[in-house]
Amino acid sequence: MTPNTAGATKTTLTDLVLPSETNPLNNLFGGELLARMDRAASISARRHSRRFVVTASVNHVAFNRAIPLGSVVTVEAKVSRAFKSSMEVYIDVWTEDRESGLKTKANEAIYTFVAVDETGRPIPVPEIIPETKIEKLRYEGALRRKELSLVLAGKMKPNEATELKALFLNDK
Amino acid sequence: MTPNTAGATKTTLTDLVLPSETNPLNNLFGGELLARMDRAASISARRHSRRFVVTASVNHVAFNRAIPLGSVVTVEAKVSRAFKSSMEVYIDVWTEDRESGLKTKANEAIYTFVAVDETGRPIPVPEIIPETKIEKLRYEGALRRKELSLVLAGKMKPNEATELKALFLNDK
Amino acid sequence: MTPNTAGATKTTLTDLVLPSETNPLNNLFGGELLARMDRAASISARRHSRRFVVTASVNHVAFNRAIPLGSVVTVEAKVSRAFKSSMEVYIDVWTEDRESGLKTKANEAIYTFVAVDETGRPIPVPEIIPETKIEKLRYEGALRRKELSLVLAGKMKPNEATELKALFLNDK
Amino acid sequence: MTPNTAGATKTTLTDLVLPSETNPLNNLFGGELLARMDRAASISARRHSRRFVVTASVNHVAFNRAIPLGSVVTVEAKVSRAFKSSMEVYIDVWTEDRESGLKTKANEAIYTFVAVDETGRPIPVPEIIPETKIEKLRYEGALRRKELSLVLAGKMKPNEATELKALFLNDK
Amino acid sequence: MTPNTAGATKTTLTDLVLPSETNPLNNLFGGELLARMDRAASISARRHSRRFVVTASVNHVAFNRAIPLGSVVTVEAKVSRAFKSSMEVYIDVWTEDRESGLKTKANEAIYTFVAVDETGRPIPVPEIIPETKIEKLRYEGALRRKELSLVLAGKMKPNEATELKALFLNDK
Amino acid sequence: MTPNTAGATKTTLTDLVLPSETNPLNNLFGGELLARMDRAASISARRHSRRFVVTASVNHVAFNRAIPLGSVVTVEAKVSRAFKSSMEVYIDVWTEDRESGLKTKANEAIYTFVAVDETGRPIPVPEIIPETKIEKLRYEGALRRKELSLVLAGKMKPNEATELKALFLNDK
Repeated sequence: MTPNTAGATKTTLTDLVLPSETNPLNNLFGGELLARMDRAASISARRHSRRFVVTASVNHVAFNRAIPLGSVVTVEAKVSRAFKSSMEVYIDVWTEDRESGLKTKANEAIYTFVAVDETGRPIPVPEIIPETKIEKLRYEGALRRKELSLVLAGKMKPNEATELKALFLNDK
Repeated sequence: MTPNTAGATKTTLTDLVLPSETNPLNNLFGGELLARMDRAASISARRHSRRFVVTASVNHVAFNRAIPLGSVVTVEAKVSRAFKSSMEVYIDVWTEDRESGLKTKANEAIYTFVAVDETGRPIPVPEIIPETKIEKLRYEGALRRKELSLVLAGKMKPNEATELKALFLNDK
Repeated sequence: MTPNTAGATKTTLTDLVLPSETNPLNNLFGGELLARMDRAASISARRHSRRFVVTASVNHVAFNRAIPLGSVVTVEAKVSRAFKSSMEVYIDVWTEDRESGLKTKANEAIYTFVAVDETGRPIPVPEIIPETKIEKLRYEGALRRKELSLVLAGKMKPNEATELKALFLNDK
Repeated sequence: MTPNTAGATKTTLTDLVLPSETNPLNNLFGGELLARMDRAASISARRHSRRFVVTASVNHVAFNRAIPLGSVVTVEAKVSRAFKSSMEVYIDVWTEDRESGLKTKANEAIYTFVAVDETGRPIPVPEIIPETKIEKLRYEGALRRKELSLVLAGKMKPNEATELKALFLNDK
Repeated sequence: MTPNTAGATKTTLTDLVLPSETNPLNNLFGGELLARMDRAASISARRHSRRFVVTASVNHVAFNRAIPLGSVVTVEAKVSRAFKSSMEVYIDVWTEDRESGLKTKANEAIYTFVAVDETGRPIPVPEIIPETKIEKLRYEGALRRKELSLVLAGKMKPNEATELKALFLNDK
Repeated sequence: MTPNTAGATKTTLTDLVLPSETNPLNNLFGGELLARMDRAASISARRHSRRFVVTASVNHVAFNRAIPLGSVVTVEAKVSRAFKSSMEVYIDVWTEDRESGLKTKANEAIYTFVAVDETGRPIPVPEIIPETKIEKLRYEGALRRKELSLVLAGKMKPNEATELKALFLNDK
């Protein structure tokens, strides 16, 4: 299994906000953005693993700004770290103003996918090599987030989450 | 503003897994389930606040089991706690086996919504009164999750998150 | 085949009126509501029979009030009576006012489903036990409606439809 | 208001059965056919009235044969009779076999539409002139069906439904 | 293989412009009309060949007039000429004004389809017999368009395109 | 109006082939790909003009290879040349093999858009500066294609199409 750089898994999905995806205030439904990010992120995970992939979890997602009907939305996904058969994918969402052309960060999200064979069983994936500064930061944070995920799922005791505990203790 | 019981905000969305919502393994796309949960949860938040509501954030969501094409899926949402203008909504997802009729828990998720006026500005909401044992547990956990959300968004320092810190320190 | 109470087959589908489902007056298309009722009713029939089910007929449906974009619509379906391999399902539709929270009956409809095996052939279903007053009324009316259905389809002569004839003659 | 012949309102909607419209047996969902018929019939009613139209009711619809994924389905709608501001529309549905080219009648349905102004209030429509033998039969039956509809809706007593009563009495 | 008249392949798809198919100016998306024409044209090609058909190419399509939300659009397709295993399909698009009932030509388009067997391999198709004046004109033009298509695809040298060259040289 | 380089208008839309977009052979419908290319190309035209844009025409499009359900499809659009208020957009489509990761060119297409103001009237757009070798080739070909488009629309006589005529004469 040959490792990939994070950059090699980059997936860009630029599309319009369509009328069927808006809420009564004429902005993109949060749920539709979650679905669109899921599709882009799954392509990154699939490009890295060359396997079928299924969504395993979604980390905390904040919706900071409304995205109106007719906007151009860019969803950019990259695998930030690979574990045994799971991959964390970092997603950045931008909108751009039609008149000024300015791009604004609208969201960030982190999804985790698992590579599976045709029967749906987990299967190992290659490693990810972070290159840029931000890729390295996200790579390092991935372990902490994995622990948080296990704690929240009740599969790890909080005091065994060494990376996570450090966050709260060192910061005093 | 009259408070509501958590039960009064219960929203049930039982529907089929349609062919347009499935991935190459013929299971429900994670992203589609996220969108469906968003719609059900937004109805609960709207029933409680009687206002327009917008998705503010999605807490960690784990996808534990594949949901095949043609399944009957029940999404049940209830407001677990209300803050100033935001509401935490707890969502439980079940599938049921056609032949045995058995219901299986497929997912849990927590979304946060903000009530807004017609211009999109936040507006206060009434309180939630938890009644059952599980409603009370979720009500109590909501404050801790709000802190976690603020810490992850960089809007609160970890050592100010008193409820959250206690979780990691007391649990030794 | 164990009988079920009508209540055990109850299916609730609460969802928003989405922009892709509206007509030029910005109200829910009649045809979309028919499709949504079909999905909910088919789930009730499937819960009762634990088989695949196909729509056999739709009784008279009246659309009494327009349902505007963004409304919350609740479709509630229950099997009202089971025959050899067919099941009559009664559907009640409510909308609720966002500001007052008041629920208003928007529609009633009656669909008939047939339980089939994997090749599409009809297969017997258990009986339904009505419990509440309205369930009993609907259970009794089902036979009359079945006759009407057969008469309209040209499969029964009007003067053989004993239940139905009584309706017109006794009511003088 | 100039009357139209029934033929002048004919609407033909020939389209494929798409994958997003099928049930677990890979046949067209009954509910999707109901929605498609509603669209075609509303166009006929609109062509006749030159007004906005809304679905008022659906008469009894029987689904006699399964329509598999990929089929070519023809929905043909014609206004069968106009009343004050309502129009009865008769719909015939055919499928055709790809290999033999043979067309088979799959369904018949009758919808009623009301012409409305921009505020949704009923508005008068011109008369319909039936020409062919089948158009005349449907035109005559329309009054009987209107009575049945009023009886089922509780807006007319069975013994006032003179056309309908005759059906049951004369047929002895 | 029995030839068909062009008229025997006529497919009519009359439908509404739905809210999910419109752009920010509330008109039908060009791309949606292209998709709708593709479905209607593929049905004509399938009716002629009685085979599965796949889109091979789309000739130049001009969008002359905006088609607003809620319009009634009629797409009419007819096979204009058959070659070995390919078929040229001519598509005419009309809209009609709700108030005056006037029909206006909105577009013309030409698609080419190939008949294939279950494995996707091309398979011969019968000939087309043009009958009306316009069908004959389109039949004759089809050869010239086929040459243009081959030239544009780099599969024929411009100076071998005898029909096409004549168009530019004779016309002086 | 500041000119843009062709590269500055590049739009990438990478997405999955969804089940609702496939034909009976389980491949992407030609019509769906046309719609997807339309959306991506319109974003490029909008990025260049910073105006609303509407599809004016689609040049000849050839579908060379079937794209199966579940494929990853990348649609890449760039404005190739700007005229007074119209813009030619070149679109390249690739699919990639899940197992080998190899990308294959699936299609090329050329769409033309017109920039319009809020009332739908054409409005001038800045120039495009081609930089790479292929961008320059496409920039030069654009004038010839514009002539062809005018000839096909009957708005220019073949013998006035100087660029186009040269193509057939010089090539002897």
